[in-house]
Amino acid sequence: MEVLVPFSADRPKSRLADALSPSERAAFVRTMLADVLAAIDDAGGDPLLLATEAFDPTDEPTVPLDPPVAVDDRPLTDAVNALLAERRPGDGTDPVAIVMADLAIATPESFRELFAVGRETGVAIAPGRGGGTNALVVSRPEFRVDYHGASYLDHREIATDAGLSVETIDSHRLATDVDEPGDLAEVLIHGEGRAATWLRETGFALDASGGRVAAVRK
Amino acid sequence: MEVLVPFSADRPKSRLADALSPSERAAFVRTMLADVLAAIDDAGGDPLLLATEAFDPTDEPTVPLDPPVAVDDRPLTDAVNALLAERRPGDGTDPVAIVMADLAIATPESFRELFAVGRETGVAIAPGRGGGTNALVVSRPEFRVDYHGASYLDHREIATDAGLSVETIDSHRLATDVDEPGDLAEVLIHGEGRAATWLRETGFALDASGGRVAAVRK
Repeated sequence: MEVLVPFSADRPKSRLADALSPSERAAFVRTMLADVLAAIDDAGGDPLLLATEAFDPTDEPTVPLDPPVAVDDRPLTDAVNALLAERRPGDGTDPVAIVMADLAIATPESFRELFAVGRETGVAIAPGRGGGTNALVVSRPEFRVDYHGASYLDHREIATDAGLSVETIDSHRLATDVDEPGDLAEVLIHGEGRAATWLRETGFALDASGGRVAAVRK
Repeated sequence: MEVLVPFSADRPKSRLADALSPSERAAFVRTMLADVLAAIDDAGGDPLLLATEAFDPTDEPTVPLDPPVAVDDRPLTDAVNALLAERRPGDGTDPVAIVMADLAIATPESFRELFAVGRETGVAIAPGRGGGTNALVVSRPEFRVDYHGASYLDHREIATDAGLSVETIDSHRLATDVDEPGDLAEVLIHGEGRAATWLRETGFALDASGGRVAAVRK
């Protein structure tokens, strides 16, 4: 299954600014991307990097895979919809998945489950915490994405309005996109890849002195 | 399967203080409890309310089920371990589950999965966001809980040290305990029961103007 992985090499995650410097954020998002690509590959997916600007993953020492790269500087929704219009999933062709590049604790097993459910339904959605759409499998050519706002609910509605069957993937690993300092604790708790190693090497450790366990820097 | 549901009728959730008044918090936790009890019941579990003080669930208009109640005013870890010592799960007896009362978006399906995995392994753990233990199935008499700190990691270690097999349940619904204002959005997005209805009737709605979708009060 082709798996689109949108990636903004030029726009580091500003909501992590309290925890990481701009150059650290740029390095950290690459470790997450590497983990996501490796897990997709292990799960039998064929990643296509959908980058906002020219980007050679093999230039990045932390990204060992060498997926094809499509460059599209339009907003995420437009770029993904252009590819869906081109691929026409389900129209005699395989489903297409769209997976965010910051799912740092996703495992091959969680992607295998996503792909398996996606093959059996019109649209399979793994919601993110906060109502986003962290991963999606589209098996019908008439479906289009809209990543603005509470896109999980919007995508359910778009699919239902188009008469498509919808399945929700109930996975903490797929629901955890790493956007805010609070998300870093999830990487330290559950992560097994480069992102978790990078955080530890950068001085982050779990701190259980507050309510929920947090990632703090020494 | 017997399912212990710890519940503090007297200690409303202080981390929700910015969103709800004390009396609202007391009402809201009861709607969550009712949803959790109903989902456990639908999944074939037999809930036992483990309350910190005498508490009659039938006094609560929002709690339609009438589970047995065990009162134990000790800290959570001690109260649960006392019951585990008494029940000796796996010693010729059924496994015992422990499920938090604030899993407001848990569904019968998520509990069925938990119970099924729990029957097949020594200890099954559904981690909460932030490293807690939101739900647990204990199938061996030698296991004891320790809810302090990052209990998910501690419980894995306790089980492994005791030579028990451990399985992690990867579920966003079971990972979502409702402790902080940010968690209320999950209830509005995914909840289908009394807690979601109560939030809407209390004036909460989703607001997508920030980064992640939030629950805001009108």
